[in-house]
Amino acid sequence: MLKTLINGSPQDTISALDRGLHYGDGVFETIKVQRGCMVLLQEHLKRLYEGCDRLRLMPPSRDVITEEASTLINNENKAVLKIIITRGPGGRGYRIPSQASATRIMLCYPYPDYPEERVMTGVTVSICSARLSTNPLLAGIKHLNRLEQVLAANEWHDHSIVEGLMKDQMGHIIEGTMSNVFLVSNNHLITPDLTKCGVAGIMRQQVLDIAQDLGISHDIREVTEEDLFAAEEVFLTNSLIGIWPVKTIQNRNFDRGLTTQRLMRELDRREV
Amino acid sequence: MLKTLINGSPQDTISALDRGLHYGDGVFETIKVQRGCMVLLQEHLKRLYEGCDRLRLMPPSRDVITEEASTLINNENKAVLKIIITRGPGGRGYRIPSQASATRIMLCYPYPDYPEERVMTGVTVSICSARLSTNPLLAGIKHLNRLEQVLAANEWHDHSIVEGLMKDQMGHIIEGTMSNVFLVSNNHLITPDLTKCGVAGIMRQQVLDIAQDLGISHDIREVTEEDLFAAEEVFLTNSLIGIWPVKTIQNRNFDRGLTTQRLMRELDRREV
Repeated sequence: MLKTLINGSPQDTISALDRGLHYGDGVFETIKVQRGCMVLLQEHLKRLYEGCDRLRLMPPSRDVITEEASTLINNENKAVLKIIITRGPGGRGYRIPSQASATRIMLCYPYPDYPEERVMTGVTVSICSARLSTNPLLAGIKHLNRLEQVLAANEWHDHSIVEGLMKDQMGHIIEGTMSNVFLVSNNHLITPDLTKCGVAGIMRQQVLDIAQDLGISHDIREVTEEDLFAAEEVFLTNSLIGIWPVKTIQNRNFDRGLTTQRLMRELDRREV
Repeated sequence: MLKTLINGSPQDTISALDRGLHYGDGVFETIKVQRGCMVLLQEHLKRLYEGCDRLRLMPPSRDVITEEASTLINNENKAVLKIIITRGPGGRGYRIPSQASATRIMLCYPYPDYPEERVMTGVTVSICSARLSTNPLLAGIKHLNRLEQVLAANEWHDHSIVEGLMKDQMGHIIEGTMSNVFLVSNNHLITPDLTKCGVAGIMRQQVLDIAQDLGISHDIREVTEEDLFAAEEVFLTNSLIGIWPVKTIQNRNFDRGLTTQRLMRELDRREV
């Protein structure tokens, strides 16, 4: 059942003057809740605060967010917590009101019922024609301006397709609509550079850290469509799915290779 | 006094699940209200519907929007009407819900108290360092993803500066944070091309139409910073301000030249 908490109150509406609505003026996090715990909460909060800093948005304190989120999830065994922080209500115009006071929106959703085969045999992925725009000012953070993802995620109607990969304006592969993407080529792990666009996923960083710990060589760089199709293994990451191996991209099949399996096992072992 | 109407009801909140909040998944219009009339309403509705079409958002009917807007403004002598249409409440995830039902948000604001000198002697303008990103998918329409404008409009703290001009990623001049921009060079009117980014303003189109009627030669094309500083006249347009001549951009002074004055007079005569 969906539960909500707005600025600490059990309500399900926000002000029609909220700048989150008017301009997408805010940031969000999607957090896995497992056995009453918010998985990787500190990492999510770190990105949330970096996003607020980038938008010059005065955020609520860590204590307030943590307390409200804990109250809302209330020992759920398995759920999804979404935290939205906006710049709060404002008048007309883009300039930030001097009295701006952030709105805290906590939403607790049922955990999605992902088929087990996505982990076991992998997923089918398409390449979207909607492209990401380039803007270093907004790259990396998880802000509320998400129309590009909305348009991309609505390109396919074939239910066997689980995710779509997005390119930037130059045609480089950047990420999935709701996930980051990794390639394995000659036992070398590669993920796209996100300094000009894209969302720097919490799970992406976990996988990079694990690769480091396991001594898997890795690289963050520009990825072309040729790189993608030439890879031996491809997988997707996000905070809810962990790692999903990719089995097919536009008729090219991939194996759930050894590097992907090593990373999945280690992620499982660490319970994140 | 601010008045609001949400889906036809006199309330001032929206659902915390609205996709307008979660993704900026919607469009808006800002309309001048004068002597009880919504100025250029048909032109605004046309752009609103084009935006909905581009976002594949099933909009409310013209009759519903017009009736609710009329009810809200209720013969105000002078006011600002903002119409926001979002894709409505949704679940988690970017994909458009099959049952999506648009949210209609009407807001009636007091008319801003612009000093008369902005029309008479012109305004001081800066050039923002925050740049617009390039995305033909979203260019031209007035969607709710406005973080670039928010960041740009907060770059200056000098109250004598009224507007900031924004460049695209290539460094071309595109528009102001809340206005379109025109140059006059050798009696020739120029305004930036908006096929890759920017908002195609209703007043911008009015000015282009008037130029056509008055036999003023004009051109929509790429504009560089050099073009801007080499211009004889520069002016800004939007639906509320009409035309504001620019008197200063970063220490370069401009005259309120003859072409600008002709266009202002004709705009006045047409009462738009």
